[in-house]
Amino acid sequence: MSNQKLFNIAVVGATGAVGEQIIRLLEQRNFPIKELKLLSSARSAGVKIPFKGQDVTVQEATPDSFEGVDIALFSAGGDVTKALAPHAVKAGAICIDNTSAYRMDPDTPLVVPEVNVDKINEHKGIIANPNCSTIQMVATLKPLYDRYGISRIIVSTYQAVSGAGAKAIHEMLRQSKEVLAGNDAKPDILPVGSLPVKHQIAFNAIPQIDKFLDNGFTNEEMKMILETKKIMGDESLEVTATCVRIPVVYGHSESVYVELKEDFDVEEVKTLLANAPGIVLVDNPAEQQYPLATDAAGKLETFVGRVRRDLSNPKALNMWIVSDNLLKGAAWNAVQIAEYIAIEQ
Amino acid sequence: MSNQKLFNIAVVGATGAVGEQIIRLLEQRNFPIKELKLLSSARSAGVKIPFKGQDVTVQEATPDSFEGVDIALFSAGGDVTKALAPHAVKAGAICIDNTSAYRMDPDTPLVVPEVNVDKINEHKGIIANPNCSTIQMVATLKPLYDRYGISRIIVSTYQAVSGAGAKAIHEMLRQSKEVLAGNDAKPDILPVGSLPVKHQIAFNAIPQIDKFLDNGFTNEEMKMILETKKIMGDESLEVTATCVRIPVVYGHSESVYVELKEDFDVEEVKTLLANAPGIVLVDNPAEQQYPLATDAAGKLETFVGRVRRDLSNPKALNMWIVSDNLLKGAAWNAVQIAEYIAIEQ
Repeated sequence: MSNQKLFNIAVVGATGAVGEQIIRLLEQRNFPIKELKLLSSARSAGVKIPFKGQDVTVQEATPDSFEGVDIALFSAGGDVTKALAPHAVKAGAICIDNTSAYRMDPDTPLVVPEVNVDKINEHKGIIANPNCSTIQMVATLKPLYDRYGISRIIVSTYQAVSGAGAKAIHEMLRQSKEVLAGNDAKPDILPVGSLPVKHQIAFNAIPQIDKFLDNGFTNEEMKMILETKKIMGDESLEVTATCVRIPVVYGHSESVYVELKEDFDVEEVKTLLANAPGIVLVDNPAEQQYPLATDAAGKLETFVGRVRRDLSNPKALNMWIVSDNLLKGAAWNAVQIAEYIAIEQ
Repeated sequence: MSNQKLFNIAVVGATGAVGEQIIRLLEQRNFPIKELKLLSSARSAGVKIPFKGQDVTVQEATPDSFEGVDIALFSAGGDVTKALAPHAVKAGAICIDNTSAYRMDPDTPLVVPEVNVDKINEHKGIIANPNCSTIQMVATLKPLYDRYGISRIIVSTYQAVSGAGAKAIHEMLRQSKEVLAGNDAKPDILPVGSLPVKHQIAFNAIPQIDKFLDNGFTNEEMKMILETKKIMGDESLEVTATCVRIPVVYGHSESVYVELKEDFDVEEVKTLLANAPGIVLVDNPAEQQYPLATDAAGKLETFVGRVRRDLSNPKALNMWIVSDNLLKGAAWNAVQIAEYIAIEQ
């Protein structure tokens, strides 16, 4: 469409792990861009990032950066969003925020396009992108929610180190080399960069992602619980989560137990999942086919398999859900929201 | 005790990963041994294994190997147990079997000493050692079962490659080196050596341990479900399991959701666990202390932490249980049973 509207786009946190993926996706998807503004902290300003054959110079993000910007994609941490998104909104930009800053704000829609795309239009300047572990779970469960109703979800996660940023990837690979060489693996970043105690992630499983709350759950677990209810628009939904970091680079896996409100046929469930937008059913036990993090890495879809009726509760299902945490779990969900905004205008 | 009865002990599968640990434990625990007979397949016969300062030569296990043996510890695979244990019983030996061959046999006690030590005396020649993932879970839940009753357990596992034998450990380490060097990691053994399809375990999570059944569950998952009911002596117990292999060498971790029949106080639960035999409570979120596979490796105890009341069901608890799968999950549980037999005689 030659007369398609073109947009001025800003990416805040352009040099981060998620920012890089956002830029790559805007290019791949041929997003209708008039001008692309890449923003970062002062430290990374001046870096050149290739986009459609040209180098774009990263600029320091300041309150004045958003003049003329139509859509600003934020992934530079909650503090940066809180400091700058209000200025972007004032300048007339729609902000799509990858941080947790506004997710639970009642005035901010929390959007997974496959689940609640209709909420996008209710924004007051900011649309929040949910937590990575939440996105892949709700995208998969939505067709089951619509068809049967869901009363309860119990999820245990197997989360990749890339969810904690490029430094955590580097730490896991470095520790792995150290252990394989027969040396001690000094922990430096994980489980939580800003907390004093560190644990080895190489060849280990750490049952802590983000800080603990007084109720014994971590922030990550509470995000899965609270965001799922908000995105599904159902406060009666019972959700329990245990979030665990494992030595995988890209791709979060989830063991999900879900109680449905109505009777179901497992084959019908599989058909619903196979036909759901953004979902790929990989479920052939006879051929040992099920979703794997290494297969999901680099893909935009969410993969589901090991779908089986619970033996102790005939109204419950167990399944295994895997997606690339930097793509559908972050960058792709944000760019999807931007595409819906672009189509509407 | 100078007049303590001494026993003739046979270890079948003496050169395997579990057999090695059994021999090490018999030595460490100063088990009252008159003669130690180390048995294996013809392939490993002739190997010398040090025991209390002397070399013991491994002999080929045959039906005639058990003359004069008081206690035979089997860990050479279900087929070997099925072929040889009846001969051992006929020769007057008590067999402690680490394989799944007799676990669900109604005439064979399935024993975790912390849970049902009284069942040992009901044996008719064979006592079965449960699956590794089952042992650490039931040992931890037993004090809660006794105090409050348990109606339902939903468990997701994070299992170490050593559970699949020395070859799987080697494969995981080899693949890790290959990936770190930027090469492809050729899968050769996992998830199931005898099945055609192989998946990379390095930097991945494989939701398959053992073969699939028609109900969509794996054998490993069904072991956790059926063995837990048998050991607890409660067929009404509802159990669901999802078993996953992750790139850890030693130590299975488990995310466990458990519904109790009576109201409970979380601090009382923690006290019960802290005082339970064989259980170590590691649960201090403020100090980021919880069980880790790397800490549990090489230890005999089962470690539990992340104990917290479920937010959606006040009668439910979530917790994180970790133990060395080759020790409490196999060799140590078997040697514990042998120690009870020795004390009784």
